[in-house]
Amino acid sequence: MALELVYWPPIPGRGEYVRLYLEELGLEWTDVARAEGAARVLHELSRSEQRLQPLAPPVLIDGPRRLSHVANILLYLSDTYGDGAVDRYEANSVQLSITDLVSELHDTHHPIDVGAYYEDQRAVALQRAEVFRERRLPKFLGYFDRLARESEGPWLLGQFSYVDLSLAHTIEGLRYAFPRAMERVEPTVAALPRLTRAALDRPRIAAYRATADALPFNEDGLFRHYPELDP
Amino acid sequence: MALELVYWPPIPGRGEYVRLYLEELGLEWTDVARAEGAARVLHELSRSEQRLQPLAPPVLIDGPRRLSHVANILLYLSDTYGDGAVDRYEANSVQLSITDLVSELHDTHHPIDVGAYYEDQRAVALQRAEVFRERRLPKFLGYFDRLARESEGPWLLGQFSYVDLSLAHTIEGLRYAFPRAMERVEPTVAALPRLTRAALDRPRIAAYRATADALPFNEDGLFRHYPELDP
Repeated sequence: MALELVYWPPIPGRGEYVRLYLEELGLEWTDVARAEGAARVLHELSRSEQRLQPLAPPVLIDGPRRLSHVANILLYLSDTYGDGAVDRYEANSVQLSITDLVSELHDTHHPIDVGAYYEDQRAVALQRAEVFRERRLPKFLGYFDRLARESEGPWLLGQFSYVDLSLAHTIEGLRYAFPRAMERVEPTVAALPRLTRAALDRPRIAAYRATADALPFNEDGLFRHYPELDP
Repeated sequence: MALELVYWPPIPGRGEYVRLYLEELGLEWTDVARAEGAARVLHELSRSEQRLQPLAPPVLIDGPRRLSHVANILLYLSDTYGDGAVDRYEANSVQLSITDLVSELHDTHHPIDVGAYYEDQRAVALQRAEVFRERRLPKFLGYFDRLARESEGPWLLGQFSYVDLSLAHTIEGLRYAFPRAMERVEPTVAALPRLTRAALDRPRIAAYRATADALPFNEDGLFRHYPELDP
């Protein structure tokens, strides 16, 4: 039976981390929001009969299983369908560091209220984005760069694993959201552009990204480009 | 060989989630910051010879393993030393929801800059704390309350697991940081006070909490009580 991904249309968002790994694994899967519309997403989030209701999408449905949280879904997919090339706890640890970076990135455009408009928290967003650009972004990317350099390959953990896809997608998102800041930081973390290229050049990933299923970044998503946040 | 926990002294902080589960499992462990001081913590975070350097504490050392991120450490401990009573991905999913709640709690006192003083971001903290008190806190606790009610026991996943300890500690921290908001919310999520009592009454947890090792909450930690954030 095909796996099903439950996520909001039409943004790449956090769902894209799951989509990329599903593609890499060559699994059969459907994106229920695109196949059946947002009503199915709402139904999945509210169905009362299921044992463990998710707090938020993305949710991955695999037979009787309903999994939520990107890092948890990726861990499950790797355990169940992966090749076991890397240590599961090392991979999970790196993925959770990516989660932290992505969460801080999100808060640059929503520093006060996730439920309110960006425009209504723009003044504070300017302050938070400056801290992110100047200190947090170099700190996180410096950490990942060190892992990639110490592993002596293009990959973070010696062998290719899902965290490489997650980091490559995050780098792409950061280039979209903060092109000027990334232009300054990338030369100092030279292993990361190499890793990103290698990950996105993998045959199944390149094939997926050439389709209309790979949604472009936009200002309703996680990675948003507001020029005033990236002077 | 005894396990070692690497975390900053002298706050409960994120390290406390690990300490509680180590105690519950009855494992032999040492808190290196208390046994050897902060220099050992800094050494562990900077040692260049280790394969996967952690980004931040807490770090758990178990023989050749160095694990970071609370959710990852708890998953490892449960997989390695636990009784397997609950599904690992369900537990991990709930733990990651607790991580999200704790991260939002943290940002109530550090909404702009994790590296700056609270006093320098107090005006924005007032705004962020209001959103947290009025909308995010009831949303998260309502979610956990539903899980506990649907599981028909005191526990979140039917059987006792580490997520119950994590949630109980979080509830205690929230009562310390936001006593007035919690007084309003707790009656609406009645399964959670019951779960908290049952978790903290477990013999090993009660014994640990009666020692000086269980540090009190304070305003250098994760859960901080600033009366102006809880009017």
